[in-house]
Amino acid sequence: MEPTATPSADQLETFPNPRPGRDYTIEIVCPEFTSVCPKTGQPDFGTIIFTYVPDQWCVELKSLKLYLQRYRNMGIFYEQVTNRLLDDFVAACQPRRCTVVSKWTPRGGITTTVTCHYEREQPASSSPAGGATPSTSPG
Amino acid sequence: MEPTATPSADQLETFPNPRPGRDYTIEIVCPEFTSVCPKTGQPDFGTIIFTYVPDQWCVELKSLKLYLQRYRNMGIFYEQVTNRLLDDFVAACQPRRCTVVSKWTPRGGITTTVTCHYEREQPASSSPAGGATPSTSPG
Amino acid sequence: MEPTATPSADQLETFPNPRPGRDYTIEIVCPEFTSVCPKTGQPDFGTIIFTYVPDQWCVELKSLKLYLQRYRNMGIFYEQVTNRLLDDFVAACQPRRCTVVSKWTPRGGITTTVTCHYEREQPASSSPAGGATPSTSPG
Amino acid sequence: MEPTATPSADQLETFPNPRPGRDYTIEIVCPEFTSVCPKTGQPDFGTIIFTYVPDQWCVELKSLKLYLQRYRNMGIFYEQVTNRLLDDFVAACQPRRCTVVSKWTPRGGITTTVTCHYEREQPASSSPAGGATPSTSPG
Amino acid sequence: MEPTATPSADQLETFPNPRPGRDYTIEIVCPEFTSVCPKTGQPDFGTIIFTYVPDQWCVELKSLKLYLQRYRNMGIFYEQVTNRLLDDFVAACQPRRCTVVSKWTPRGGITTTVTCHYEREQPASSSPAGGATPSTSPG
Amino acid sequence: MEPTATPSADQLETFPNPRPGRDYTIEIVCPEFTSVCPKTGQPDFGTIIFTYVPDQWCVELKSLKLYLQRYRNMGIFYEQVTNRLLDDFVAACQPRRCTVVSKWTPRGGITTTVTCHYEREQPASSSPAGGATPSTSPG
Amino acid sequence: MEPTATPSADQLETFPNPRPGRDYTIEIVCPEFTSVCPKTGQPDFGTIIFTYVPDQWCVELKSLKLYLQRYRNMGIFYEQVTNRLLDDFVAACQPRRCTVVSKWTPRGGITTTVTCHYEREQPASSSPAGGATPSTSPG
Amino acid sequence: MEPTATPSADQLETFPNPRPGRDYTIEIVCPEFTSVCPKTGQPDFGTIIFTYVPDQWCVELKSLKLYLQRYRNMGIFYEQVTNRLLDDFVAACQPRRCTVVSKWTPRGGITTTVTCHYEREQPASSSPAGGATPSTSPG
Amino acid sequence: MEPTATPSADQLETFPNPRPGRDYTIEIVCPEFTSVCPKTGQPDFGTIIFTYVPDQWCVELKSLKLYLQRYRNMGIFYEQVTNRLLDDFVAACQPRRCTVVSKWTPRGGITTTVTCHYEREQPASSSPAGGATPSTSPG
Amino acid sequence: MEPTATPSADQLETFPNPRPGRDYTIEIVCPEFTSVCPKTGQPDFGTIIFTYVPDQWCVELKSLKLYLQRYRNMGIFYEQVTNRLLDDFVAACQPRRCTVVSKWTPRGGITTTVTCHYEREQPASSSPAGGATPSTSPG
Ligand SMILES: [Ca+2]
Ligand SMILES: [Ca+2]
Ligand SMILES: [Ca+2]
Ligand SMILES: [Ca+2]
Ligand SMILES: [Ca+2]
Ligand SMILES: [Ca+2]
Ligand SMILES: [Ca+2]
Ligand SMILES: [Ca+2]
Ligand SMILES: [Ca+2]
Ligand SMILES: [Ca+2]
Ligand SMILES: [Ca+2]
Ligand SMILES: [Ca+2]
Ligand SMILES: [Ca+2]
Ligand SMILES: [Ca+2]
Ligand SMILES: [Ca+2]
Ligand SMILES: [Ca+2]
Repeated sequence: MEPTATPSADQLETFPNPRPGRDYTIEIVCPEFTSVCPKTGQPDFGTIIFTYVPDQWCVELKSLKLYLQRYRNMGIFYEQVTNRLLDDFVAACQPRRCTVVSKWTPRGGITTTVTCHYEREQPASSSPAGGATPSTSPG
Repeated sequence: MEPTATPSADQLETFPNPRPGRDYTIEIVCPEFTSVCPKTGQPDFGTIIFTYVPDQWCVELKSLKLYLQRYRNMGIFYEQVTNRLLDDFVAACQPRRCTVVSKWTPRGGITTTVTCHYEREQPASSSPAGGATPSTSPG
Repeated sequence: MEPTATPSADQLETFPNPRPGRDYTIEIVCPEFTSVCPKTGQPDFGTIIFTYVPDQWCVELKSLKLYLQRYRNMGIFYEQVTNRLLDDFVAACQPRRCTVVSKWTPRGGITTTVTCHYEREQPASSSPAGGATPSTSPG
Repeated sequence: MEPTATPSADQLETFPNPRPGRDYTIEIVCPEFTSVCPKTGQPDFGTIIFTYVPDQWCVELKSLKLYLQRYRNMGIFYEQVTNRLLDDFVAACQPRRCTVVSKWTPRGGITTTVTCHYEREQPASSSPAGGATPSTSPG
Repeated sequence: MEPTATPSADQLETFPNPRPGRDYTIEIVCPEFTSVCPKTGQPDFGTIIFTYVPDQWCVELKSLKLYLQRYRNMGIFYEQVTNRLLDDFVAACQPRRCTVVSKWTPRGGITTTVTCHYEREQPASSSPAGGATPSTSPG
Repeated sequence: MEPTATPSADQLETFPNPRPGRDYTIEIVCPEFTSVCPKTGQPDFGTIIFTYVPDQWCVELKSLKLYLQRYRNMGIFYEQVTNRLLDDFVAACQPRRCTVVSKWTPRGGITTTVTCHYEREQPASSSPAGGATPSTSPG
Repeated sequence: MEPTATPSADQLETFPNPRPGRDYTIEIVCPEFTSVCPKTGQPDFGTIIFTYVPDQWCVELKSLKLYLQRYRNMGIFYEQVTNRLLDDFVAACQPRRCTVVSKWTPRGGITTTVTCHYEREQPASSSPAGGATPSTSPG
Repeated sequence: MEPTATPSADQLETFPNPRPGRDYTIEIVCPEFTSVCPKTGQPDFGTIIFTYVPDQWCVELKSLKLYLQRYRNMGIFYEQVTNRLLDDFVAACQPRRCTVVSKWTPRGGITTTVTCHYEREQPASSSPAGGATPSTSPG
Repeated sequence: MEPTATPSADQLETFPNPRPGRDYTIEIVCPEFTSVCPKTGQPDFGTIIFTYVPDQWCVELKSLKLYLQRYRNMGIFYEQVTNRLLDDFVAACQPRRCTVVSKWTPRGGITTTVTCHYEREQPASSSPAGGATPSTSPG
Repeated sequence: MEPTATPSADQLETFPNPRPGRDYTIEIVCPEFTSVCPKTGQPDFGTIIFTYVPDQWCVELKSLKLYLQRYRNMGIFYEQVTNRLLDDFVAACQPRRCTVVSKWTPRGGITTTVTCHYEREQPASSSPAGGATPSTSPG
């Protein structure tokens, strides 16, 4: 663990999607996320859920784990980190769609969840699917 | 705690939305809400859930906590308080959309939930989503 | 408790909807409903759930409780009582929409749920939502 | 119990729908279903769920219980029995819509659920709903 | 158990769909799936869920169990195996639609789920449903 | 149902214990109990649990159900009814031991449980158990 | 509600134990307790559970509810309030035994439970009660 | 399945306990038990749990399953069948200790559990075991 | 947060036990504990539960939170940290009894819990309380 | 993974108990155990729970994981494997006490759990407890 390194999309290693011809969904649940509140200096704890439809690349899980660990001693707000996780994930694997959800443990009796979504812009003629369940392209 | 002060939208502090270019959702669950029934003088207990898509401003959580505490000794009915919470929240941060749900503990063997929704009126050319899951604007 | 009185919509007291300009939803869960099976003379036990969008009037909860208690010694079938509860509720508060669900404890190893829905007929120009989550009229 | 009699739609007694003018839903959960696997001779155990919108007739629950008991010693596969239950139910009460779900206990570490749906063909001018939640006809 | 044999769609035995005239759904939950991670050589454990609408053929459960057991000592990644399970299943029984979900136990504190879907291409004039709940063809 | 009759231990029918030579335990859970609060006139709802070691007689369940139904319109407090249920049960079947637990639904946000226990006095030389798990007499 | 009055054992009304000759247990669960942290001025929320064996007197529930409400705006620590609740309860009804448990909602990610027990000193020769709640030595 | 054969302890096959020198516990949960109520002719459904400390013999599971299936069409009361199951089990494998629990699905809103225990008589000098967790003999 | 400081019993602040004359129990659940595995350098996550009977001093919760945060970047094994937490807690407040439980999230598919207990040595004549947590012989 | 190697106590690596002067408990839950039924050749799946009080040595978790994986393709019955796991564990780390529980997934509708316990023989003067919660021996 490199607790002082800055998390970077470059850390996220990818491997070729074994079935790029099919829209399918990968969900990755990471319940051991922790960062630091920039205002109070206290640690925050949350679960991060990535759900994506890969295009040419899938994200390698161990590199994702190491990437997430770099937030351990970093001060960052809920809204910022959720958007940043989505941006880095999208930058790393350029998925067709991706949703990032962060669910945080209670602070002051209040529990927060942030949900961000990315969808690749479509060429005009295509008509794919808005929901999380992808339609299937011809086999 | 200022138990005699009146709750006011002015109490709700905001900070700039770190990603205004993206529609995304913030959910805030507040299970420690209490007010007083105006009819019986008995305390009511409930969970308040705010779900919103921020526009230019996000609501700061500690100010929300303090704002909610001002209902502690205030007499107000379920339907009134839920609509008022939505109005104050909308006034404070002018979100694109917001839902407030209040779930109350049983009284006389009966449990009540009130759900109010706000959606900003759209200019004619825009095509906003209707559901709680926002579509994503171009990055 | 007046165990021999007949339940009547007249018992249901109402109060003015504090926010008639907004479509919003009130859910009322009543897990202590009991009536009598007309066929066997045995008591039935169920949970009644009212979900409605008020128009000009909301239903007062204590009067609803007392109204429901009048079924205590009354013989009535599942389908009849669910439809009657909906009719009485609609007659009392003339909501925009209302759903009544009755969930009964098992008899002969079999569990029954009955769901009835009312939706006010709309003038031709209006564009009402179809689902349980109301769309919001302009504030 | 007549363990050797064959189940028949004729067993299913009906009573007049008390509110034929309203589309409403009746769900009947039967967790004590048992039949015999024709291949192994071993008993199968499942939960059968009927969900229907009655038209002129409702199914009487005790007759349904006795009908289901006749499968107790009968050899029949999951797919067959689920379709047959739907056919018999539809034949008996001619509902507007009906779904039958059978959920079976694990065999060889594998759990199976079969879901069959019937919807009455509509005259061309009608506009029936597709989902399980019926739209309401005018009162 | 033949731990060294390669899993093959040929292993999947089928039987004639007892009701080909009706679109209906069969769900098969297999919580005892295990394979080997090609990278670490460590065993993986998951639950595989097949949900399909049969056309002319249904998959026989015991053959499915034996087919799945052949992955026991085989090195294969999450994404690969899920797509392969779908391909083999589709090849074996040529369903109208099929979804395969694989839910894996945590590794490095991270839990993964992969969801793949197949839908038979439709002739231009037909308009079949897209969702998991099939509409019903005429009886 | 005879809603105006007074419950009486005489209603409780018994049958000979099929194995009086063995101390064993019978637990009977009755979640559909209802009586009336003498103070408010409002109905109370509770679950009654009888756990007993029969001696010469067991209690017949249908008579127990009918006996409990006679409390339906009777005004009686939690503590009184729990002790009375134990006394009547003991009078009816003279068990070696018996516990009656009554668990009530919330009133005023408060939930109450009452637990009463009876144990037959032992001749001096015997060595009775104290707990709910009976010791076994010689076979 | 008298939010400024001080809670007092005198508020707790009692009624004669209907069965003083039998040791039996009454459990009262109060999930709507709230007081104020003297250090931070922030409200605390907890569940209070009283479990007691009455002697000559039982505690009347409505008076207990009103008594607990007087802590609503009172500054008091977890340990203090739990011991005080036990002292007041014992003073009011002089039970044979009593346990008070307070379970608090999380603060700073930490959840606290305090458990206090009282047992009346016994004359040497007596041999009370064989229940699962252990007797305590004199304080 | 031989639905008309009478269940018999002879059906229960045993195999030599692989570790007779150690007291250890085997628990067998059978949630698919069904028999017939002799009074009403209706089927009963229950879960049977055997917990035993083997001596020289363990019970073979498949034979136990087949033995239990013979109750499928047999009329027998809850108390009788539970004691009989214990007697047959003890006769078949002569365990050091055995408990049989039968938990039945609700009838008339009432749920029943029967618990029977056997413990082999001990020679005078030995003093083993009151609890469910066996003490261990020397290795 | 001082991520590089070493945790020390001196950090744990105490306040006088408000009721030293009574043995009572305080349980503190800390689900947000994290440290680092000395072998792999990977973060560990666990829940720490302190349960103690205070003597003259109680532990102040905020100081406990800050103390626990100092393990955030410290390499220490499960067994070591659990014993150390107990030692520091006992050193800080000298309780009559204390148990520390640490429950860790899974690693390699394996979940670990460590439970340590301390009990102050008693003078020979004393007879301390008989709660469910067993007394310990001298350390 | 060495799927053909035989599991052996020699595989279990140990490290010195960091606190041998204190009796404390380590629980290790392994939900990913699989072996093969010698009778049917079908795979078995279970959860293995080790609970022990270390003496001079603790078991290293990774070696335990690798040890358990060697059962993957080995034919062995439930009772045998549970006793063998206990024997190997005791041989490897010579604990003061150890319990091994194996809980298996259902086969033929039947679920089995096997519980084995080891306790080191005590010198004559000691008086060890019989329950699952160990009393502590002198340091
Ligand atoms: Ca997903
Ligand atoms: Ca949410
Ligand atoms: Ca609702
Ligand atoms: Ca239902
Ligand atoms: Ca339904
Ligand atoms: Ca299923
Ligand atoms: Ca499905
Ligand atoms: Ca998942
Ligand atoms: Ca019981
Ligand atoms: Ca209790
Ligand atoms: Ca606790
Ligand atoms: Ca036992
Ligand atoms: Ca505790
Ligand atoms: Ca554990
Ligand atoms: Ca343990
Ligand atoms: Ca068990």
